[in-house]
Amino acid sequence: MAGNTVEPGRTVLSRALAILDSFSERRPEQTLAMIVRDTGLAPATVHRLLAELVEWGALERHGRGRYRIGLRLWQLGALAPRGRRLRDVALPFLEDLYEATHQVVHLVVRDEDQALYVEKLSARPQVGVVSQVGGRLPLHATGPGKVLLAYAPAEVRERLLNAPLAHVTQATITDAARLRTVLADIRATGFCLSRDEMTVGASSVAAPVFSRPGEIAAAISVVVPSRTGSLAPLVPAVRAAALGISRALRPDEVFR
Amino acid sequence: MAGNTVEPGRTVLSRALAILDSFSERRPEQTLAMIVRDTGLAPATVHRLLAELVEWGALERHGRGRYRIGLRLWQLGALAPRGRRLRDVALPFLEDLYEATHQVVHLVVRDEDQALYVEKLSARPQVGVVSQVGGRLPLHATGPGKVLLAYAPAEVRERLLNAPLAHVTQATITDAARLRTVLADIRATGFCLSRDEMTVGASSVAAPVFSRPGEIAAAISVVVPSRTGSLAPLVPAVRAAALGISRALRPDEVFR
Repeated sequence: MAGNTVEPGRTVLSRALAILDSFSERRPEQTLAMIVRDTGLAPATVHRLLAELVEWGALERHGRGRYRIGLRLWQLGALAPRGRRLRDVALPFLEDLYEATHQVVHLVVRDEDQALYVEKLSARPQVGVVSQVGGRLPLHATGPGKVLLAYAPAEVRERLLNAPLAHVTQATITDAARLRTVLADIRATGFCLSRDEMTVGASSVAAPVFSRPGEIAAAISVVVPSRTGSLAPLVPAVRAAALGISRALRPDEVFR
Repeated sequence: MAGNTVEPGRTVLSRALAILDSFSERRPEQTLAMIVRDTGLAPATVHRLLAELVEWGALERHGRGRYRIGLRLWQLGALAPRGRRLRDVALPFLEDLYEATHQVVHLVVRDEDQALYVEKLSARPQVGVVSQVGGRLPLHATGPGKVLLAYAPAEVRERLLNAPLAHVTQATITDAARLRTVLADIRATGFCLSRDEMTVGASSVAAPVFSRPGEIAAAISVVVPSRTGSLAPLVPAVRAAALGISRALRPDEVFR
């Protein structure tokens, strides 16, 4: 094997990171050939970098030439303050909310222009909820996403409002002026009710979590079947949990 | 800055991984100077690699020259089958166990010679339980650890039994012959009772999760204050949850 293929404009590290990037929710397990196709790197380069990544534990070999993300990377990722640590502080409150409602409970942060799902508690049979831990959904189409958007820096909000808003269902708010009103309502009331905007048949109540006054850290939500009827009875529980998490975050140094 | 310091015997990737390795539970946030001290790499090298890691999202800048693990790495780690996916399958059963007992519930895997805590559910006030998600504890001193050891490949078990077994508390089993008997008991009964072996005042009931007959994937446990008295009443609930998770893992392709 060549091993010294010249691939201009890419550092060794960026090649290794491109290999890691080729893993996703949809493709959690890959072969060397798949990675070569995905990254455009020379097979010899991929081969050599894979060996290093496996040795360190970022990847694990699995069966015949298959690779998947390893425990070492999982463990390292668990140190991310906006992932695991936020989640650790929030979990007891999410547990209470789950126990009180027995519905799907979410903890969500904003990552650039998307809603990133950090935690999800749910009973065994789930009613058509598309969220996945570690997965992303559009901000404007989900309850927690709208909450995150409502309290996001103005430039983030304007960038999103000035771009086309994708239809996810027929109920998704795709009109910028209407979305602007909805976001103002969220800021006025401190919560957000959504119906069928991400998934037909699923509705949610969402509320903001603040790491300090005015500085949003996350949003939480409870998702119920739309046929449940009024969402109003859930509002106090969701708001109380969000306030509890906000308070628990304060003494912590993580969000200074 | 030099930027081209020669550091023989280390590849660029291994240097980047050494930088990531310098982050830990104890040091989730680091400065360039701390990383330089920790890795022994040239400041210019660390500076350059940090910039690449931040750009990709493996690390995030925080305040004045501080770095922490970024969301991108958390998200990637969430793809690890033995981390997040095992946890996703197990969670509903762990929830039930938590709701039935309102005690600390653990999901643990073996990583080399240590017990790695993948999930922990607990009420707000915790009674002196030292586990942390993403943290490691000695196999021989914890209930889930002993379960993982009981069903581990013989060579793993022998390696551990032939090395000195550290005292954690006065109750920790440090005699190899006695530990051997305990492990045989676990294999005979399918569960493990522990008292004060990791933390004085904390006792546990643990049981194995199998990805297929004879192939252990994880262990779960419920931790109760030792003053609770008999642990026997908890055994059926813990075993049932472990069997439930084992069954749920079967149709899944993750553990082929």
